[in-house]
Amino acid sequence: MSGGINLAVIGATGAVGQEMLKILAERNFPLKNLLVAADPRETGQKLKFKDQELTVQTASPEFFAQADVALFAVESNISRNLAPVAMENKCLVIDNSNAFRMEEKVPLVVPEVNPEDIKLHQGLIASPNCSTIIMAVAINPIHQAAGIERIVVSTYQAVSGAGAAGIDELTEAVAAYQGGSNIEPIIFQHPIAFNVIPHIDVFEANDYTREEMKMVFETRKIMHADEMRIAATAVRVPVYRSHSEAISIETRIPITPEEARNILQNAPGIVVLDQPGENKYPMPLFTADSDDVFVGRIRKDISVDNGIVLWVAADQVRKGAATNTIQIAEYVVSHNLF
Amino acid sequence: MSGGINLAVIGATGAVGQEMLKILAERNFPLKNLLVAADPRETGQKLKFKDQELTVQTASPEFFAQADVALFAVESNISRNLAPVAMENKCLVIDNSNAFRMEEKVPLVVPEVNPEDIKLHQGLIASPNCSTIIMAVAINPIHQAAGIERIVVSTYQAVSGAGAAGIDELTEAVAAYQGGSNIEPIIFQHPIAFNVIPHIDVFEANDYTREEMKMVFETRKIMHADEMRIAATAVRVPVYRSHSEAISIETRIPITPEEARNILQNAPGIVVLDQPGENKYPMPLFTADSDDVFVGRIRKDISVDNGIVLWVAADQVRKGAATNTIQIAEYVVSHNLF
Repeated sequence: MSGGINLAVIGATGAVGQEMLKILAERNFPLKNLLVAADPRETGQKLKFKDQELTVQTASPEFFAQADVALFAVESNISRNLAPVAMENKCLVIDNSNAFRMEEKVPLVVPEVNPEDIKLHQGLIASPNCSTIIMAVAINPIHQAAGIERIVVSTYQAVSGAGAAGIDELTEAVAAYQGGSNIEPIIFQHPIAFNVIPHIDVFEANDYTREEMKMVFETRKIMHADEMRIAATAVRVPVYRSHSEAISIETRIPITPEEARNILQNAPGIVVLDQPGENKYPMPLFTADSDDVFVGRIRKDISVDNGIVLWVAADQVRKGAATNTIQIAEYVVSHNLF
Repeated sequence: MSGGINLAVIGATGAVGQEMLKILAERNFPLKNLLVAADPRETGQKLKFKDQELTVQTASPEFFAQADVALFAVESNISRNLAPVAMENKCLVIDNSNAFRMEEKVPLVVPEVNPEDIKLHQGLIASPNCSTIIMAVAINPIHQAAGIERIVVSTYQAVSGAGAAGIDELTEAVAAYQGGSNIEPIIFQHPIAFNVIPHIDVFEANDYTREEMKMVFETRKIMHADEMRIAATAVRVPVYRSHSEAISIETRIPITPEEARNILQNAPGIVVLDQPGENKYPMPLFTADSDDVFVGRIRKDISVDNGIVLWVAADQVRKGAATNTIQIAEYVVSHNLF
């Protein structure tokens, strides 16, 4: 493993952390050493990585001192506590949480959209919210070609966005429903089996949820488009994995669906799946375990002059979290930015 | 039952027909006689209505001659065949199918929106598509107050929109998934368990589905708003009953969320459920078996100057079909229009 870096994964036992280990192996990430940390109660636990056995450590100053780069797959409050410890020990943090995304000095990066921002880091780079990453990959090529002025987006978000516990709650809720009863929801606000819930994260003062406002503020920051006007409705649906989004876009310059389709077909990280006559369009059930953002149902927005409508689906645990973070790390390594 | 009319229900054994019988009993519809017809293979079958037993008949000229009004709950092609037979026998048709909705001489009616159009009938009145009815009830009060210029809507539609077979297919698909396999979909284009499918009805030349275009053309006709610009994305979700819709509205005159909330609270057929701080908003699981359209998440569309966003859910078998048809019949009876 010479020529690589010393990489740490913080939160390695969680849903996103586990996915990170899987993807690091798949992509043959250039590693000198791979260190893993998790909840102190899990210290000493063994994790498999390729043909190795890794021992879960506690994320201490000594731990970070051994790492060049750390991928953080933990809750915001833990990121807030541990990121300064990593940075003091000269370990670059790539954080998957909401803790630092909107801080001015922190690049917020989707490598297909704004890789150059990685170069501006001051020891910490943030990876955006899952719904935001998926939308940004899909719309950026259209923004580059035609200048997006306004977006209206409705999401159809999988339960795994709420981690392993969200997956379990859907399974238990479906079983209870089949038995004629209901479970008391814990992860979600209401029963998720055979239901949809227009409520993800907390409500803000403007009656949008934080999830919806992340799609506004983070998209603008990633795309360097402070003037872009965005309104979102974020909805949880009884799907295990992969988020879907119905996206209506208004552009400054007219763009036809054919032009948009061509541009998207040649854009990084995107698979265009758009043969409606053959019943081909993106769906969450068939996009799980992929790193691509699938785009289809590309058509003129018939309610406005310069408008395009897209339907997008992507694995939010991978491209929406783990893969995006690792892509940032790959750029860091290949450009010697750690 | 004196003072009532002779009413026929065509398609009385189907999902919507059965719901019609239930609602006619609940609302104590003014009946002289209730006649029921269905597929000729079901002739002679017995159906319960209040304390009576009704015998399924064949929809012949003699059958229609005994009825003042017939509620049609059958497929479009059957409506096309039987409606002329009813009309020739002086039986007013109230049709729930897509067969006649856009014909110029046929009033297309949501009683909360355009009841006066019932008076213009020439023997046939059409009830709109389920998603359209639900949206029209929710947005009409805002249109009256502020003039709607544009709508972007994304739907979350229940499997019962595809009838009893759609319900069965979801149940079977979920069971198969739990057993680690998949069923071959018949009603839907793809597996519906733990998936969402952006495809309802057939695709039109403009790459919108017919379901999506119904929401455009029917809404304009019901609301007498030929200039209203509408774009829809219609999506099937693994929910048994009640459709949900995320609706973004642009108005000619500015309207605040508070004004919209007040107007909607006082509008017919609407229940405003909008206390996000208490996790109260419409959801399909809790709106089934109601005749009301539930509206919540009322907020400013932050992506446009004069915009309002709504989240709506309603039982599409009832208000979206059976109830709407019966409300039209009630108006016909109370205004002596048969």
